[in-house]
Amino acid sequence: MAAQIFDIAIIGGGPAGLSAALTGRIRNKEIALFEHLDFSQKLQKAHIVDNYPGLPQVTGKGLVQQMAAHAQAHQPTIIKEKVLNIYPGEKFTILTPAATYEARAVILATGVVATVLFAGERDFLGRGVSYCATCDGMFYKDKNVAVIAYTAEGEHEAKFLGELCRQVYYLPQYKGELPPFRDNVKIVADKPRAIKGDSQVEQLATDKGELKVDGVFILRQSDPVENVLAGLELDGEVIKVNRDMSTNIPGVFAAGDCTGKPWQIAKAVGEGLVAVLSAIGYLETKAKQA
Amino acid sequence: MAAQIFDIAIIGGGPAGLSAALTGRIRNKEIALFEHLDFSQKLQKAHIVDNYPGLPQVTGKGLVQQMAAHAQAHQPTIIKEKVLNIYPGEKFTILTPAATYEARAVILATGVVATVLFAGERDFLGRGVSYCATCDGMFYKDKNVAVIAYTAEGEHEAKFLGELCRQVYYLPQYKGELPPFRDNVKIVADKPRAIKGDSQVEQLATDKGELKVDGVFILRQSDPVENVLAGLELDGEVIKVNRDMSTNIPGVFAAGDCTGKPWQIAKAVGEGLVAVLSAIGYLETKAKQA
Repeated sequence: MAAQIFDIAIIGGGPAGLSAALTGRIRNKEIALFEHLDFSQKLQKAHIVDNYPGLPQVTGKGLVQQMAAHAQAHQPTIIKEKVLNIYPGEKFTILTPAATYEARAVILATGVVATVLFAGERDFLGRGVSYCATCDGMFYKDKNVAVIAYTAEGEHEAKFLGELCRQVYYLPQYKGELPPFRDNVKIVADKPRAIKGDSQVEQLATDKGELKVDGVFILRQSDPVENVLAGLELDGEVIKVNRDMSTNIPGVFAAGDCTGKPWQIAKAVGEGLVAVLSAIGYLETKAKQA
Repeated sequence: MAAQIFDIAIIGGGPAGLSAALTGRIRNKEIALFEHLDFSQKLQKAHIVDNYPGLPQVTGKGLVQQMAAHAQAHQPTIIKEKVLNIYPGEKFTILTPAATYEARAVILATGVVATVLFAGERDFLGRGVSYCATCDGMFYKDKNVAVIAYTAEGEHEAKFLGELCRQVYYLPQYKGELPPFRDNVKIVADKPRAIKGDSQVEQLATDKGELKVDGVFILRQSDPVENVLAGLELDGEVIKVNRDMSTNIPGVFAAGDCTGKPWQIAKAVGEGLVAVLSAIGYLETKAKQA
């Protein structure tokens, strides 16, 4: 199958991503909008928003729906898959649990999820720490793994790993009823604390003890963006951007909460627009050079 | 009369200024919004706007009205006077043709008007070139002046000067029927080109000849912002801003078209929000130091 090459891949479908998708489509670019949840989870929870000019007293949910409908009317390609990794190159390769995609430019609009990495998490990334069971599960065949899950999406991952691994410890960090699991999937109500080992992961320390494991799968609402795209320069915990929303990686732009405070809709929408116009400018410059 | 001291003066009531006023009022700050025309003249002329997320297919006029109504519901003090000069100091002093105002911080949201200064304009500023008849008219009693006007507001200025000066040349640079003037106000259909003189203005050169004058009043929709606020650092023709919308002058922020392209509503609205939150942060820091 000859895959389509998108002009611009937008990672995240909150106000920043939707604004970028809207203007990108109006400018007639092929846009892939990656949004694996139901648009902005954070904004959906906002009771009333009253400082988005022109739309007084809207609910967060209503505003997201209006913005999503507006962008969708211009038909970006919406891909309901979580982006695990982005690889720069002649074109960007975007990896999800289900497939790979290609795009000429990337806009990161991933929001912020209060992410404190576990001690050891970064050290053992690729040496026992993984963010994707589908991708890496086979490495842990007949071994013991822990799954730390922040959304119910983790349940599918735990089930899948249960079929492969000897023992799966499932540590749900969200509320809600759990489905039935196979006998070798054990629910653990602990709070994870640290990932330990020598050259490879050996233990997951929790507030109540230690689990002996060969692998730890961490399934957050979104992954630390610098783990998704290696080499991305941060400014503290946020993506470092210039006034045109470009990052340190040519062809990669960022917009919205992931670029820093204020975490507000109007800022996100404005930055999404600037990012997509800058991305289009980047594509035009590259096309001239080619 | 003990004048009110505003927390924040916002200069310009387009999308950036309205967004700043809205969030500033929600944060309970005393806001003065200076808007001498009927909100964004430029946006009012936009036929259809379709890339302001959440409000598909609105007319420019409809969008301005919705934004203005939204901001006005939160009751900023709207001052329908043109800002001529802003003087920094312990507090900022803001001069209009009618009065002076004080504010602790300033947000410039003046938009862009394609302004090419006339040759000699900057050289003779304060030495025969003025942007305000009410302020400077008395200096030209019984002398000859030219009035270059880009909006019908200039007609009042020409009438006022007609009562003071010997001869007034009125050069309307807009379309529309003119009112009757006194005999000493002469309508001149020329295009102005250059302001000339030695230590003071002596002539206004036009495409058709030269007018011998002692003063030239230039009445644009908005004045070159660096003439309104001395010492403001520009980046080419736009105001140089940091990511938090601060300028080189402490307490002065900028937002919207005046900070550069893209000239788009979503950008302006986002920058207005960021600017007002940064201004509030500035006020809080100052209050702590006091």
